[in-house]
Amino acid sequence: MTIPFKVAAFSGGVGGAKLVLGLSQICAAEELTVVVNTGDDFEHLGLHVSPDVDTVIYTLAAINNAETGWGRADETWSFMSALQQLGAPTWFQLGDKDLALNVYRTEKLRSGITLSDVTIDVAQKFGIRFRVFPMSNDPVRTMIETDSETISFQDYFVRQKCRPAVQKIRYQGLDSALPSPGLDALLKSSEIGAYVICPSNPYLSIDPMLSLPSVRDHIIDSPAPVVAVSPVVAGGSLKGPTGKIMGELGIPCTAIEVAKHYKGLINGIIIADQDAGDTAEIERLGVHVITANIVMKSTQDKRDLATLVLSFARQLASKSK
Amino acid sequence: MTIPFKVAAFSGGVGGAKLVLGLSQICAAEELTVVVNTGDDFEHLGLHVSPDVDTVIYTLAAINNAETGWGRADETWSFMSALQQLGAPTWFQLGDKDLALNVYRTEKLRSGITLSDVTIDVAQKFGIRFRVFPMSNDPVRTMIETDSETISFQDYFVRQKCRPAVQKIRYQGLDSALPSPGLDALLKSSEIGAYVICPSNPYLSIDPMLSLPSVRDHIIDSPAPVVAVSPVVAGGSLKGPTGKIMGELGIPCTAIEVAKHYKGLINGIIIADQDAGDTAEIERLGVHVITANIVMKSTQDKRDLATLVLSFARQLASKSK
Repeated sequence: MTIPFKVAAFSGGVGGAKLVLGLSQICAAEELTVVVNTGDDFEHLGLHVSPDVDTVIYTLAAINNAETGWGRADETWSFMSALQQLGAPTWFQLGDKDLALNVYRTEKLRSGITLSDVTIDVAQKFGIRFRVFPMSNDPVRTMIETDSETISFQDYFVRQKCRPAVQKIRYQGLDSALPSPGLDALLKSSEIGAYVICPSNPYLSIDPMLSLPSVRDHIIDSPAPVVAVSPVVAGGSLKGPTGKIMGELGIPCTAIEVAKHYKGLINGIIIADQDAGDTAEIERLGVHVITANIVMKSTQDKRDLATLVLSFARQLASKSK
Repeated sequence: MTIPFKVAAFSGGVGGAKLVLGLSQICAAEELTVVVNTGDDFEHLGLHVSPDVDTVIYTLAAINNAETGWGRADETWSFMSALQQLGAPTWFQLGDKDLALNVYRTEKLRSGITLSDVTIDVAQKFGIRFRVFPMSNDPVRTMIETDSETISFQDYFVRQKCRPAVQKIRYQGLDSALPSPGLDALLKSSEIGAYVICPSNPYLSIDPMLSLPSVRDHIIDSPAPVVAVSPVVAGGSLKGPTGKIMGELGIPCTAIEVAKHYKGLINGIIIADQDAGDTAEIERLGVHVITANIVMKSTQDKRDLATLVLSFARQLASKSK
């Protein structure tokens, strides 16, 4: 009998969800807890939309749309076409099936049920064995300051297709937000064997979670090792605006900068084979490095990377943190 | 040049909407105003659903589902199937396209726009040339008292498929509801040439409208004739629970009883050819009678009946009311 090695994974949307899927294939139900960014959440058409939570849930339920990176596979679009007829905004695509989750969640939230509870409920309904917690039940909204205005992340990301130059990113509502009960209990648990920072955008997806009161401190104070997987490969991001945003913020888009960003929090990082040249400089930061194929195309890629993450964590755990 | 003969038609769902469609085909845009029952409205899945308003709008826009009598033609059902997966109630069917209108309306209402204004907006978006007003911007809810409980109309009609015996019908919220601005202006207008009571359920669809403050009195005081079309044919209703409900309320399901119900309000009634035997008794009530084919199967049937309604009204207008 092996003692369960409990893993707490912090994830944003598509990139993070891929590693989460890999972890789900090698972990028992009680071994994996996923904490998901809600900084991208927004109110649209009167509905509470939680893009990252839904991407993680759809991915774990194996009903995600792998091509788009959001929404469900085998989706239909009648709602959107009828909405267009009404002259309503159609820049944010909500498929007919995806809409069911959004309507369901919105009604539950309006009736006083927390985002955590509705997320747990939905995950169960989709047959997901793992705990999936939103980072907070309170609204934290990632806002993008451009040279001309401050806009919500979805406005920037979807409506404006990341065209504006980002000058600053801030998390509105952070001052009055608390970690969700699930995240709070997780942080106070003595059973965590490893924290995993998934390959999501550090600024947009991971930082909102780490910036919640006490989250970063709890992780640092924990004896469990913290392993990050770089979202950067060979000077760019695989999907999403990480590379563009880092450039606009004046940060070179390199694995070194990702490691620097997480310095003091992480004990190890897995970077792309292509970025092996960054190893020495990252190690000088006091961060252990492994290089690997971190481009998770196949199911096997995801499983292999997840396996590597956990073996790296076990290896780091044997050292003093 | 003919002087416009302005018609105010009061309608519930499917039966009423058929006559409204007929009227729309023989009236110019400024000649027809439709007032629609909202007693059947309800909140479902956090959405404000207005079944009768939508049936009238979909019918006038020629996108209604003629088979079901509700919803849109060429509808898809992905939302409902996904909702079922979430264990949410699926007894009230909302098609993917139909949902767009419901989501759109709900968001507008939540933002403070009135039901009247969103109805006018939606009718315009669907290219409807006629004014369509909900009876009220305030919530009036038709409640069904059965032997065991009091339930909303949709609960009775859709979820319980009209199975419980109706003991009483009442209109919750009527005390604090006002006619919608459009209906109010209509009633105060001196230009109405005829009021038409469409062949909808008198108790469920027409009475909520007539019971709003001052509506019945305004219609009675108006010099314009009031013509009803019977929703009853040969001892039964064509669609919907009119016959069953009348029976349970101890009222014979006859054209005579419909005329009695509207006595004092209407000047004339068009009844089915099959009910010609009721003519003398109805005329003894002081109500003029025409018999006709009131089963509107084809477009021509609807147009013919609408034409008859207006010629009957013109004929009644020439007599003293």
